[in-house]
Amino acid sequence: MNEAIIVLDMTEDSIAPEARAVDKRKAILPRVKEFLAWTRKTGRPVIFVCSARRKTDKWFLKYWELANEIWKPGQAPIAELYDAQKDVIVHKRRYSGFFGSDLDLTLRELGVTSLVMFGWSTSLAVVTTAVDGWQHGYPTTVVSDLCISHAWGGHSVEETHQWSLQFIEAMAKSRIATAADLMK
Amino acid sequence: MNEAIIVLDMTEDSIAPEARAVDKRKAILPRVKEFLAWTRKTGRPVIFVCSARRKTDKWFLKYWELANEIWKPGQAPIAELYDAQKDVIVHKRRYSGFFGSDLDLTLRELGVTSLVMFGWSTSLAVVTTAVDGWQHGYPTTVVSDLCISHAWGGHSVEETHQWSLQFIEAMAKSRIATAADLMK
Amino acid sequence: MNEAIIVLDMTEDSIAPEARAVDKRKAILPRVKEFLAWTRKTGRPVIFVCSARRKTDKWFLKYWELANEIWKPGQAPIAELYDAQKDVIVHKRRYSGFFGSDLDLTLRELGVTSLVMFGWSTSLAVVTTAVDGWQHGYPTTVVSDLCISHAWGGHSVEETHQWSLQFIEAMAKSRIATAADLMK
Amino acid sequence: MNEAIIVLDMTEDSIAPEARAVDKRKAILPRVKEFLAWTRKTGRPVIFVCSARRKTDKWFLKYWELANEIWKPGQAPIAELYDAQKDVIVHKRRYSGFFGSDLDLTLRELGVTSLVMFGWSTSLAVVTTAVDGWQHGYPTTVVSDLCISHAWGGHSVEETHQWSLQFIEAMAKSRIATAADLMK
Repeated sequence: MNEAIIVLDMTEDSIAPEARAVDKRKAILPRVKEFLAWTRKTGRPVIFVCSARRKTDKWFLKYWELANEIWKPGQAPIAELYDAQKDVIVHKRRYSGFFGSDLDLTLRELGVTSLVMFGWSTSLAVVTTAVDGWQHGYPTTVVSDLCISHAWGGHSVEETHQWSLQFIEAMAKSRIATAADLMK
Repeated sequence: MNEAIIVLDMTEDSIAPEARAVDKRKAILPRVKEFLAWTRKTGRPVIFVCSARRKTDKWFLKYWELANEIWKPGQAPIAELYDAQKDVIVHKRRYSGFFGSDLDLTLRELGVTSLVMFGWSTSLAVVTTAVDGWQHGYPTTVVSDLCISHAWGGHSVEETHQWSLQFIEAMAKSRIATAADLMK
Repeated sequence: MNEAIIVLDMTEDSIAPEARAVDKRKAILPRVKEFLAWTRKTGRPVIFVCSARRKTDKWFLKYWELANEIWKPGQAPIAELYDAQKDVIVHKRRYSGFFGSDLDLTLRELGVTSLVMFGWSTSLAVVTTAVDGWQHGYPTTVVSDLCISHAWGGHSVEETHQWSLQFIEAMAKSRIATAADLMK
Repeated sequence: MNEAIIVLDMTEDSIAPEARAVDKRKAILPRVKEFLAWTRKTGRPVIFVCSARRKTDKWFLKYWELANEIWKPGQAPIAELYDAQKDVIVHKRRYSGFFGSDLDLTLRELGVTSLVMFGWSTSLAVVTTAVDGWQHGYPTTVVSDLCISHAWGGHSVEETHQWSLQFIEAMAKSRIATAADLMK
């Protein structure tokens, strides 16, 4: 088994002052850093899957603000998490890491057969990438304490995080585990 | 605007005695029939998107039972809903109607620019097809009272139906409407 | 290595009286039958990839005639070649077996890691499927004497067959071999 | 009609001293520059579709040399052709501009309905992108005198260029035109 670590949307723009749930996001960065250091030591490839918007994206911008603009510094992986010598960057254009991207091709070229993923948000990039991972045939693990959720439907960030994890477990058939569990 | 009606997984097997939530599913068939008659009268194309499993699907069958086997009668649209002269059938292999299928190509060939969808289940085929519809750039409407949900995470069918609709509205940016609303 | 046999567009309609190069096509059927019997004996899965047109395909029908209509008998594999107990059928909508189809997903589910392909025509389904096979990362073999070409540009069927094979070898990186070579 | 200009693989690496057919490539750059200036004046979006290789691409590197490495300066559009204020860059990973890329999504976001394409080589990126364009449903024009071919099968660059154009016309149903024709 060759397992890759998929880091979803942990970009510089995603921790800018105006970003969603920014305090919660920043609070888990030290734990993410520790987990990534551990995974790199085990030889697992780390793939930062980063949203890449174009200012000409009329459809996208009808629904969401312009952040993570392609080729701009804010779209890069968070500097303290990224190892430029070893890590891979893949651009995605929508929610799922697999949609309109070269993620599947990159995984094939790396000989990857299973995925460990986390990032923001549990209820968008994580849930859609986990489901698409299952649809492609990849076994997946979601690192529950390295994800922060978007809220929706009047529910809290914590509630939607829990619902999303339950959905991911039931539908994407993912193993749900904490960073500490995995580093054991 | 050229709007298509997407009927998700309303196959003969899906109302077999052993199927999930089968009483709830059967209970809404008269309303589905009425809605489809109305949409056909308005000239909208009706597309039955039906799961098509192969008994060699090792990955799929690790997680789900074998139903809707490709080329078998149980995989066909529910007879009382289907108009063989007018309707289109598309096969899908996973949850989303767009994944590994010719749905997008079929929509392009038909010149379709927006989607109205319903079926089972709210929490699988509907949510993933609505999200992929958004990812492709199609405005979508979900007919809330023509959908039945899978339950997950210890929640009831009704609770997961509601959560799924809220998620679809927030993330797939769908209009959520009842059949009666749309037929007005 | 798990190798699948991909039979391209060898449908009933493709050997109807009005079909292209129909005498050449019919002339090689006994050899195809012998080759398929041999491959089935070796345990390799046989996948018939059959064009499936819809009469609503405005774009397609602007350029090509309507044959291989989906769900009609003429779209089925040629009866004398097909083993209904063992073989797999995949529908394709354009030239390439991979485009808008579930071919890649079916190969993944079968655990297939390399492809042997043939059919008609060398210059359309074979060349585009071989190139897409390479793009996905599958090593491919093209069985040169089980393919018949479309002519184009004022060249003969034999000339375009030869050019196509040279192109496939150079660009899809396929091994080009005869049925007799492979059955040795 | 909203027509986009697709410039295939005209990257800095592609005109490095060691590149294929480099004198022929360099010889047409002034004409490309003139054509692009004209198209920008007409308001057509210009999209540079540039190969982006990863040094971990084991499959790709088994067959081709490493050039156009992702995130390196050599992978950028040729400086004298590129307008950083107006033009769009899309990365592709294989031959076809559509394969494993966000090209189709980018075209949808731009509302593009037809394509004018050229670049290198006629027999790889151009032929596969034109065919995939047709498969998606885009009418295409190939600018014949702004393309340079790869040779294959012992034929000359000029011969394979001519065969490729004839193939593109017959199979991708492209209009074949010179830059001068189009600028009339």
